[in-house]
Amino acid sequence: MKQMEEKILREGVVLPGDILKVGSFLNQNIDTQLLAEMGQEIAHLYEGCGTTKILTIEASGIAIAAAAGIAMGVPVLFAKKHKSSNVDGSVYSTIVHSFTHNEDYNVVVSKDYLSADDHVLLVDDFLANGKALRGLIDLCDQAGATLVGVAIAIEKCFTGAGDQLRAEGVRLESLAAIESMSDDAIVFRS
Amino acid sequence: MKQMEEKILREGVVLPGDILKVGSFLNQNIDTQLLAEMGQEIAHLYEGCGTTKILTIEASGIAIAAAAGIAMGVPVLFAKKHKSSNVDGSVYSTIVHSFTHNEDYNVVVSKDYLSADDHVLLVDDFLANGKALRGLIDLCDQAGATLVGVAIAIEKCFTGAGDQLRAEGVRLESLAAIESMSDDAIVFRS
Repeated sequence: MKQMEEKILREGVVLPGDILKVGSFLNQNIDTQLLAEMGQEIAHLYEGCGTTKILTIEASGIAIAAAAGIAMGVPVLFAKKHKSSNVDGSVYSTIVHSFTHNEDYNVVVSKDYLSADDHVLLVDDFLANGKALRGLIDLCDQAGATLVGVAIAIEKCFTGAGDQLRAEGVRLESLAAIESMSDDAIVFRS
Repeated sequence: MKQMEEKILREGVVLPGDILKVGSFLNQNIDTQLLAEMGQEIAHLYEGCGTTKILTIEASGIAIAAAAGIAMGVPVLFAKKHKSSNVDGSVYSTIVHSFTHNEDYNVVVSKDYLSADDHVLLVDDFLANGKALRGLIDLCDQAGATLVGVAIAIEKCFTGAGDQLRAEGVRLESLAAIESMSDDAIVFRS
């Protein structure tokens, strides 16, 4: 998505540890014009795929999922992160390791809102190591839901996690796919 | 807002402790048609007020703020909750007590994204005791930003917190304002 790549080139900041800071327009301060366009692009990519629900994870996936949900006319469900392992039978739950905080989280959704009838599109802001995404896929599997595919705002292709998922048969679309990045250059997958 | 009140009457569940469960359409599973209408209603209420930024707090305020931001054409900034008090000089920070989790949080936004030039509309899903809202107002004060007003999806009027803010001169608009609620009846402010 051209506007997304241009925005990353203009405002993204590459920090040590393969961190791409996009807080100025994506995951803290949100450019809502770009956000609406992202939602429309995701709707376009998955048009006619029979999606009944978008699933994301709090917090920075929510705005993108909401924009896509509005554009597609489907509800958005967000999984919650809990530090405690104290979950009961009313939820689907999986453990996700956060490299940012070096901690394990329980990621949960209520069983009331995800079922075997659902055709689910996963949406998130970043795909780096893919751990959060695999957690969401696990929640869908537990519910017996059908995975339609994945839409990611920014994929860090150089980790290999996205291509690994594709090799496993998951349809995965990124609005911006970064092949490599450094202080002085960000190269997108063509 | 008629659609919001009707949805609460149809799907809201009143639980002990003055809890109103609206996870089926608002703060876990999100009805995106209603969400878009909420965004348009907030845009309508604050039309011509010169808003330059919407400020909300993670996680359940984000979708509503995003819908309002898209409808108004202004950026959305969300404050993050941290348990640690380890904040540095690059952020505005305030402490908010959560009654739900009986814990204090540091609520922070980067100084890069909020300034004295901003005219800020605060958006959140619930107004109960008003603690989160007062935290966001404090962040605006620290930045020297101008407070345009507040838009809340559901106000629990019976706590008095909303009317207290109004008495202090804050413009506060609720899409649904609940005067009283119990197992068998939810009464809206007329």
